Amino acid sequence: MGIEELREGTGQRLYARAKTMLVGGAQLLGKRAEMYLPDLWPSYYARASGCEVWDLDGRRYLDFTMVGIGTSVLGYADPDVERAAIAAVQAAPMNTLNAPEEVALAELLLELHPWAEMVGYARTGGEIMAKAIRIARAATGRDEVAISGYHGWHDWYLSVNLTGDGLTQHLLPGLAPTGVPKGLARTAHPFAYGDLEALRRIVVERGDRLAAIVMEPVRQSGAPPGFLEGVKAIAERNGSVLLFDEITSGFRLATGGAHLTLGVQPDLCTFGKTISNGFAMAAVIGRRAVMEAAQQTFISSAFFTERVGPATAVATIEKHRRLKAEAALIATGRRIQEGWKRAAERAGLPIVVSGIPPLAGFSFDDADAAALTTLFIQELLERGFLASDRFYATLRHEDAHVEAYLEAVESAFALIADARAKGDVRKRLAGPVKHTGFARLA
Amino acid sequence: MGIEELREGTGQRLYARAKTMLVGGAQLLGKRAEMYLPDLWPSYYARASGCEVWDLDGRRYLDFTMVGIGTSVLGYADPDVERAAIAAVQAAPMNTLNAPEEVALAELLLELHPWAEMVGYARTGGEIMAKAIRIARAATGRDEVAISGYHGWHDWYLSVNLTGDGLTQHLLPGLAPTGVPKGLARTAHPFAYGDLEALRRIVVERGDRLAAIVMEPVRQSGAPPGFLEGVKAIAERNGSVLLFDEITSGFRLATGGAHLTLGVQPDLCTFGKTISNGFAMAAVIGRRAVMEAAQQTFISSAFFTERVGPATAVATIEKHRRLKAEAALIATGRRIQEGWKRAAERAGLPIVVSGIPPLAGFSFDDADAAALTTLFIQELLERGFLASDRFYATLRHEDAHVEAYLEAVESAFALIADARAKGDVRKRLAGPVKHTGFARLA
Repeated sequence: MGIEELREGTGQRLYARAKTMLVGGAQLLGKRAEMYLPDLWPSYYARASGCEVWDLDGRRYLDFTMVGIGTSVLGYADPDVERAAIAAVQAAPMNTLNAPEEVALAELLLELHPWAEMVGYARTGGEIMAKAIRIARAATGRDEVAISGYHGWHDWYLSVNLTGDGLTQHLLPGLAPTGVPKGLARTAHPFAYGDLEALRRIVVERGDRLAAIVMEPVRQSGAPPGFLEGVKAIAERNGSVLLFDEITSGFRLATGGAHLTLGVQPDLCTFGKTISNGFAMAAVIGRRAVMEAAQQTFISSAFFTERVGPATAVATIEKHRRLKAEAALIATGRRIQEGWKRAAERAGLPIVVSGIPPLAGFSFDDADAAALTTLFIQELLERGFLASDRFYATLRHEDAHVEAYLEAVESAFALIADARAKGDVRKRLAGPVKHTGFARLA
Repeated sequence: MGIEELREGTGQRLYARAKTMLVGGAQLLGKRAEMYLPDLWPSYYARASGCEVWDLDGRRYLDFTMVGIGTSVLGYADPDVERAAIAAVQAAPMNTLNAPEEVALAELLLELHPWAEMVGYARTGGEIMAKAIRIARAATGRDEVAISGYHGWHDWYLSVNLTGDGLTQHLLPGLAPTGVPKGLARTAHPFAYGDLEALRRIVVERGDRLAAIVMEPVRQSGAPPGFLEGVKAIAERNGSVLLFDEITSGFRLATGGAHLTLGVQPDLCTFGKTISNGFAMAAVIGRRAVMEAAQQTFISSAFFTERVGPATAVATIEKHRRLKAEAALIATGRRIQEGWKRAAERAGLPIVVSGIPPLAGFSFDDADAAALTTLFIQELLERGFLASDRFYATLRHEDAHVEAYLEAVESAFALIADARAKGDVRKRLAGPVKHTGFARLA
């Protein structure tokens, strides 16, 4: 496939039209064409199955990116989850009465996490985090939080940037907290993952106001020895709720939260993305003493009660557990990480590989890394792959797919190394360099 | 059917179990059994179609309540919407690329509302309101809002109660803003629907801080003459964004917002519930100058991009428009309102009927109204109806259903009048009196 024909694709025209009507083009920063390959990315899909994606012009790609922004661990259109979804659709997704799958899902989540005693739901990661924060604040009578990592778009989190750019290290450069009420200034205090001293300093200064310590238990790397235990001890001593955000890390290293493999139990834990293999669903689980605080405040939403979410979550989790999915996710992720390293060595390209194996990433150690990454995406797309600098493993990345991908990576890396040596990386790009952070779209 | 057998129903056991794991039993206050008929309400449904609902023991009811909390205007399990949902499920609901239905839905919403120029999405009413508020604050550089009516559970709204109980008249008694940061105190100022003077007082005091005036354009009643025009003039003069929350009122009086029939255009307008006939979906539409402010802040969520939501919204809206659904909704709602009045007159029961016809309600004008309402729900349930003091019309409430329901209302009202005359209303209840507001569950 020639890359140039994508410039005239149906997806290009639709995305151009979308940008006149939908602010930012896509509803997620990470689904903007500009974050991959400006002017050339196919942008829209007709359908997907396993790790295959068809665009609006019938072109087929193998998806070696985050695969549905990290949602589809069992692979696209998993038949068992699909069956559960269709049954919920045919039963009618909303009703005056409640969906029994709500209870089945709660039982399953509590069985998987014996430390937890109660459960609540939402339909997006951002909103389940807002719900968990409300509960932590209600349970402690305190207003402030210490945060590490990425936790969505809501006011409680973006307020970090009202008094500086604390989120830069946690999220993305360029995020202004425009529209976040200034009354929330100094209610959220950032600390870097692994930096126990930074957390201690926050506690010394704001300890008696700290409702929660909020973090992803793992993501870019495993936990440094003693770090999670140290955080847990600080939270306990300080009477703060320890909240693990497992929206991305959950169901990668275990059926349930990554914390099940790390030996440290939080007081609250949130799930999203991976819980239902691509259907909108999110959950918070927690100790009864904390969760019961939800009875002293008002958290209530019609669509927190629809049926497709819990029905598909039950089907996803049961299949994940039956197949012991984590073993395959770890093995596939490791193969990709090793493949990247090997290909880079052979080509003489300096790259840094990161992430737990199911959430693998790499970056070019180069001053013009964004251009190199753009060229990589372009070359992989030309070879029939949706690719980026991250790869989230699924059960449907089979041996043949992985081999074909790594072959494509080898040839792309060789080409990139050649371009780098000749100093003509940008000349080889068919379109602009990709965006790397939050930026206003022209 | 004897009411007593419901006490031992599968739904009772499941709900009792749910309350040990899910705080408050249900994820929406309005789906708690205690809000209808404590200890006897069937609580869970197996499936639903049209206006019929089957509980877990195979009992069939006709639903004459809000019918899925106001979500299902076309009736439960509408075949056209169901087809769109299944197609989206089979295409895989999440992907690395975007769903083309996002663009189709934006085009449809803008075609229906010619004053609007841009669109954004979420998956619940609460979250689309939080998104709209963020946009309004970003667009104006102001932090405060004037509010009228119910707008969900998020901090920006509940903060009204940090300095009093301003929400009592707008929402429910008993709502403590526990867990809402105190830094938000005095950022939200309530005014009663129809009270232009109260809004003027807020503007005099807080005008230069007022990002938005937030209200439902209609609900309990039509707009008093000049009221909406007055609000619009105040918003314009004050440089505040006028935000209509049409999550409940939309798609009742027109295909689109109720404001299309009222002659006043807001700057932003939100939709939820009715937009997709029971699938989790929500949208905000607005003038470009306001919506573009979303580019200066960060609003982004993985599940804002899933496919089932926009696919079912497109199918729902197109069918709504094709059938001119509002005519039937208004006619059915009016028949029910007149039926209530007639039955009450015949029985000699004092009731007050309220609401625009598609969102009809009644209340007993009696000191023990809650007990009378409980007896009404009990008597209707015994006759095979899910009923309450509100009725939201759907296209699937056909003549025969309406006649059967009004017959049941007549006999129930006669029985209630008799109980009231004899002073033994509470003695005739098979269980406790229903809750009427937010209360902690034992």
